Amino acid sequence: MKKLEEIAKLIRYYILTSATEAGSGHPTSSLSATDLMTALLFGGFFRFDLDNPDHPNNDRLIFSKGHASPLFYALWTVAGKITEQELMTMRKFDSPLEGHPTVSFRYTEAATGSLGQGLSIGVGMALNAKYVDKLPYRTFVLLGDSEMSEGSQWEAIQIAAHYKLDNLIGIIDVNRLGQRGETMYGHDLTAYKKRISSFGWKTIVIDGHSFKEIRSAYRQAVRSPGAPVMIIAKTIKGKGVSFLEDKDGWHGKPPAKDDLGKAIQELGAVNTSLRAGIPFPEDCIPEQKMPLSAENMQYVPGEPFPTRKAYGKALVRLFPQFPDIVVLDAEVSNSTYSEFFKERYPERFFEMYIAEQNMVGAALGFSRRGKIPFVSTFGAFFTRAFDQIRMSQYSDPNIKFAGSHAGVAIGEDGPSQMGLEDIAMFRTVLNSVVLYPSDAVSTEKLVEEAAKHHGMVYIRTTRQATPVLYPLDEQFPIGSCKVVRKSDQDRITVVAAGITLHEALHAYEELVSEGIPVRIIDLYSIKPLDTVTLREAASRTKAVITVEDHFAEGGLGEAVTAALADSSTSVYSLAVRKMPKSGKPQELLDFEGISRAAIIRKIRELL
Amino acid sequence: MKKLEEIAKLIRYYILTSATEAGSGHPTSSLSATDLMTALLFGGFFRFDLDNPDHPNNDRLIFSKGHASPLFYALWTVAGKITEQELMTMRKFDSPLEGHPTVSFRYTEAATGSLGQGLSIGVGMALNAKYVDKLPYRTFVLLGDSEMSEGSQWEAIQIAAHYKLDNLIGIIDVNRLGQRGETMYGHDLTAYKKRISSFGWKTIVIDGHSFKEIRSAYRQAVRSPGAPVMIIAKTIKGKGVSFLEDKDGWHGKPPAKDDLGKAIQELGAVNTSLRAGIPFPEDCIPEQKMPLSAENMQYVPGEPFPTRKAYGKALVRLFPQFPDIVVLDAEVSNSTYSEFFKERYPERFFEMYIAEQNMVGAALGFSRRGKIPFVSTFGAFFTRAFDQIRMSQYSDPNIKFAGSHAGVAIGEDGPSQMGLEDIAMFRTVLNSVVLYPSDAVSTEKLVEEAAKHHGMVYIRTTRQATPVLYPLDEQFPIGSCKVVRKSDQDRITVVAAGITLHEALHAYEELVSEGIPVRIIDLYSIKPLDTVTLREAASRTKAVITVEDHFAEGGLGEAVTAALADSSTSVYSLAVRKMPKSGKPQELLDFEGISRAAIIRKIRELL
Repeated sequence: MKKLEEIAKLIRYYILTSATEAGSGHPTSSLSATDLMTALLFGGFFRFDLDNPDHPNNDRLIFSKGHASPLFYALWTVAGKITEQELMTMRKFDSPLEGHPTVSFRYTEAATGSLGQGLSIGVGMALNAKYVDKLPYRTFVLLGDSEMSEGSQWEAIQIAAHYKLDNLIGIIDVNRLGQRGETMYGHDLTAYKKRISSFGWKTIVIDGHSFKEIRSAYRQAVRSPGAPVMIIAKTIKGKGVSFLEDKDGWHGKPPAKDDLGKAIQELGAVNTSLRAGIPFPEDCIPEQKMPLSAENMQYVPGEPFPTRKAYGKALVRLFPQFPDIVVLDAEVSNSTYSEFFKERYPERFFEMYIAEQNMVGAALGFSRRGKIPFVSTFGAFFTRAFDQIRMSQYSDPNIKFAGSHAGVAIGEDGPSQMGLEDIAMFRTVLNSVVLYPSDAVSTEKLVEEAAKHHGMVYIRTTRQATPVLYPLDEQFPIGSCKVVRKSDQDRITVVAAGITLHEALHAYEELVSEGIPVRIIDLYSIKPLDTVTLREAASRTKAVITVEDHFAEGGLGEAVTAALADSSTSVYSLAVRKMPKSGKPQELLDFEGISRAAIIRKIRELL
Repeated sequence: MKKLEEIAKLIRYYILTSATEAGSGHPTSSLSATDLMTALLFGGFFRFDLDNPDHPNNDRLIFSKGHASPLFYALWTVAGKITEQELMTMRKFDSPLEGHPTVSFRYTEAATGSLGQGLSIGVGMALNAKYVDKLPYRTFVLLGDSEMSEGSQWEAIQIAAHYKLDNLIGIIDVNRLGQRGETMYGHDLTAYKKRISSFGWKTIVIDGHSFKEIRSAYRQAVRSPGAPVMIIAKTIKGKGVSFLEDKDGWHGKPPAKDDLGKAIQELGAVNTSLRAGIPFPEDCIPEQKMPLSAENMQYVPGEPFPTRKAYGKALVRLFPQFPDIVVLDAEVSNSTYSEFFKERYPERFFEMYIAEQNMVGAALGFSRRGKIPFVSTFGAFFTRAFDQIRMSQYSDPNIKFAGSHAGVAIGEDGPSQMGLEDIAMFRTVLNSVVLYPSDAVSTEKLVEEAAKHHGMVYIRTTRQATPVLYPLDEQFPIGSCKVVRKSDQDRITVVAAGITLHEALHAYEELVSEGIPVRIIDLYSIKPLDTVTLREAASRTKAVITVEDHFAEGGLGEAVTAALADSSTSVYSLAVRKMPKSGKPQELLDFEGISRAAIIRKIRELL
């Protein structure tokens, strides 16, 4: 205990000095959790190979309250993995020690800072340990009290209990104060206990500044079969410095340089040469996968087959080749057809129920443990998880998203179910890949490309059946496109993808019979774009028309227009611009001006 | 009771016949809730002026499980507001009776269909009744059991309890079956009861097919002071038709025409001329607002003042003129500066804690009750509520969003806190307005324009102080822009907004001193765009450069490029294209190539 107290004092010293040096940051939110984290890392509970952060059986620690980064970095300083000099670079331009932890710092499991996301990431890591890798490592998540109001936390809580994740331990730092004053429940620890235990978690309420209580809590937590555990700790924001303790107005604010001395003096004598080790994990390796034989693809040219079904079939076909695949779905596996995979490989399929935020967070957790998560729901419903999607990009993610039911072409179910902003959403993500296949063969091949590619990939699928266009041996590299109709006399270029490619092909037939040749491009890779082919087509035809079953902003049309921004060929975009509604698919394509008739009309207008 | 049974039978008849006629839809999910809704509307509990759906004191009914639309329309048919003939148009192109309810049908309170959103909308309506209009109307929300796994439900549950919304009554139709099989808790009603009551709600567990129990539940629910009430009803999916009852594989599927007769026969004799009234509400009107005198604006030209602070000041200034304003914030009012409004008009300010989804849903509820909600958080965190934002557009919304801390210019806090996809997100929304002021005066004027405009408006504000550029009497109409630097010799046009406008003005000074005149446009209205002025500038200069503190996709650059897609002037977009990180604001603007230096470099390159 004496040692822990000494370490905690040093950590508080590092928190204060590093934050004051940075001139910004959240020292008071760090001080409240200092004793909790000191006891975890240096009290013998956490097991981690400091020289090998990639050890598959390391325990995992996620700071869901990412703003407690001064504490996070101070812990690794005491563990000997950050020098004092490096610590003083916190929040500076060239430092890996960013304002909120990102994977620029190699001991960060996942970037946090948008609140209420860490527990879901932990769920993914714990699911991986228990059901996929079959490893005994534990996942610890430090949570803030303010962030417990995020619904995503309760999604994670319910799923963790459902999957009996007894290898997942949450620690809530109940310091009573949010950014702008008291939280909803203040220091009423019973409020948290009642709610969390009602979902089937074991809960342990403690004084978060008593090492005796903290250690006893961890001892119970690591031996609690059948259910996840939440340690609910009463703490004091700013603990250790009287003029910061439990005070409003000190969120996200370090002491000024002049006050730092006073603050440090209150800590008493500090031994800055103190360093502490962490016990090694058991040297286990992930469960070996059974070798499986590859499967073949079979489609009949011209035969209608929904791309969403081809997505499900592709997962089944590809698993033997990519045994790190796990599949997650939000209770719509019979619509996205991830159910094909579930039927064949039930142990690698995770039903995440209607809780998209937690599903995406858990996928990031799987990805950070070396898996290739394929995550599916309706394209429209990925908007529910935009914040999780956005945040993932800061964690070097390898997540594949499959959004079905794209566009107004779904018909009768109406606008609530239509993915009309999914391309725009996924395009904003740095280095993302956005794919939109038009037939079963290209879907299968693009799912394969997605599995091969390290990074975030979105695959958009269509509800209704579309005819098979491509031969089985056609290749669909990311960043390319297909010129599906072409002649030397082409007057106009039509760029389409998915359902609108079929409309464009119908338009082509009618126009060509009238002696109007047009070039048709299947832009199956919307990001990255095949700029070369687009420029070439633009330079050889009078105009480019884009056609998409998506709102006009941020979709295929703007992507192509941006790529041709320095070309002199005009680009015209046909897209969803009227309030969509229920109706027959073809009626809606006509209504929105993205049907074969609309394409023909536009071409005639331009000639 | 006899009468209710007759009505329920007729409603089941309408559900089956209308869904079979449509050939799609969710009759089984409707049949499970039929008795619950029949008793509510026709058992004397619901009070509603059928000829005046806009009566301010009508009770409100929201179908959060929007897929139960056949039931919803059948209820209004029995109430005499839909003819049998109209009912048979359900899901057809020209019908207001869409696949999931939208406001095309005038008795729909809010469009639903993306699950887990109705309770938040109800929270907004109930907050309005209790704290703003001070009216005795009640808000009823029909919930599905599957959708209870959405985190947004728990956000609504916690806030409703916090605000003691005893005028809010939820009814969960626990029919055990989700889309693809059993829900997480199946028919374990205790699971719901425990969890919901732990949050402070009164819960009533009943048999959802016993009129005796249902009526008793409503009687208790309407007399339950101090807390919201959840009626948790055990029901059978497909209730009333033996071959549909409690069966997997019947979600979202009506009986075929051939089976319809068999289904109807099971109901027994139906009286299709049966119609039923609904008791009138008390004839109350909303509480009158106190007349207040208008306030003035004061800013000193050239003096630095953060636009986020100007936002807060504008709310205070404008309230006397727009007394329907309510302000909601997600626990960051001291960052967004909505706290200025809270301090002045605390009774019109609602702390929604860190739960953005519910905040936006509640804002829609307020909007549907005639208020003008201004909703604020960091721009980045609106991504948390993209699904709610997206869905709002189908409910004729009048919501104003204010996102602070835009872009990499926030500096040290790092990427998790940077709004870098907010413009793209809000641009996708049909008929949305996206505003990005650069100084305090334009912020004040644009908040005023937003209040005047009926519709969804996004206002993006900046963390740090920027100098006041405009005189106090300058006007900023939506859809226009300001040409802030102009000469007849302009070589290049630079289009910027917000923080990058200041970078562009610095670049201008340097270039003009070297004899290189450039045109500078303040594109404060990113949507709608002032296409005329942009075209004019494009036609008079060699190239257009856009500069934005936002990812390259879907932002200002693509908006301008799309607007100039048929012009021959090339457009070059400077935007955030490298992985952002912590650092000083100016370092980051330089790093991303959106600073004054980058603008100058690009201009030199083009000349």
